[in-house]
Amino acid sequence: MVKMDFDLDRSLEILKQTPDTLQQMLESLSPEWTQAGGCPDDWSPYDVLGHLIHCEKTDWVERAEIILAQGENRNFEPFDRLAQFEGSRTSTLNELLTEFAHLRRNNLERLASWQLTRDQLHLTGIHPTFGEVTLAQLLATWVCHDLNHIRQIVRFMARKYESAVGPWKQYLTILN
Amino acid sequence: MVKMDFDLDRSLEILKQTPDTLQQMLESLSPEWTQAGGCPDDWSPYDVLGHLIHCEKTDWVERAEIILAQGENRNFEPFDRLAQFEGSRTSTLNELLTEFAHLRRNNLERLASWQLTRDQLHLTGIHPTFGEVTLAQLLATWVCHDLNHIRQIVRFMARKYESAVGPWKQYLTILN
Repeated sequence: MVKMDFDLDRSLEILKQTPDTLQQMLESLSPEWTQAGGCPDDWSPYDVLGHLIHCEKTDWVERAEIILAQGENRNFEPFDRLAQFEGSRTSTLNELLTEFAHLRRNNLERLASWQLTRDQLHLTGIHPTFGEVTLAQLLATWVCHDLNHIRQIVRFMARKYESAVGPWKQYLTILN
Repeated sequence: MVKMDFDLDRSLEILKQTPDTLQQMLESLSPEWTQAGGCPDDWSPYDVLGHLIHCEKTDWVERAEIILAQGENRNFEPFDRLAQFEGSRTSTLNELLTEFAHLRRNNLERLASWQLTRDQLHLTGIHPTFGEVTLAQLLATWVCHDLNHIRQIVRFMARKYESAVGPWKQYLTILN
């Protein structure tokens, strides 16, 4: 396959469509497919939405602003990848889908307002584990992170039918 | 996780939404994300759509009708999993999305017209590799097959940015 260099316009194509894709995929499904399984190591679609919301609030755009400010302290705050399991979790899945879409729209508006130049994409911040990373790497990761969690959602749902498919399991990569 | 037994209504929820999910996910993307890479072992979104169309034409509903007929010969025709690489491939991705949606809608209408009973779900046909399989297993596989190929599509697109994400690659399961 031909790999792609980071490209802001191509990235925005994916970042814009993710909330609508998730809504289309999940909003009409019964809770049997989507509800939390209670296992922090095996995220349901409901858990994934909580995680995506937490990322929109604390990760991508916050970190991009640390990079763009180029202040003395360019260290990112460590990210809490289990934050969605805290608190009361009283929202419905459809409420989470709406909240995620709202936050993503706002974040993409902030991103557009920066009118990023090519040079700014090479600016760096300090990741708590990796050390120096560029703005382009952060934004490329935002895109892949969306795709990664769509993958996690479809895999969770497919595994519900792991026994139901009988011998076909061996042909379905998603179950192996 | 709590696995699910096969349930026709729950299955239809997923089978109905797949064409719309794929359309939402893919129709606004540049060809850099979706176009065929020319490698029969690494299917692009374009290749996957061709495969899904071939399945709608020759696999799920055809095999279900062999089972339901309970004739003397209950053998399924072997499926050609590379059929989408034959022929001229002059359609655009958006034409494939429309064709898939049309075929899926027709197939779900055929399925509804059978008014399947619980007993019929236990009827069997003969798979060329596995031998005896039930109608319930065939229909559960149709569902998982949709999810499997959504997974394949997002993985293909994420891998385009495998280098662009820099050190974050190690956190992104989809790239490993």
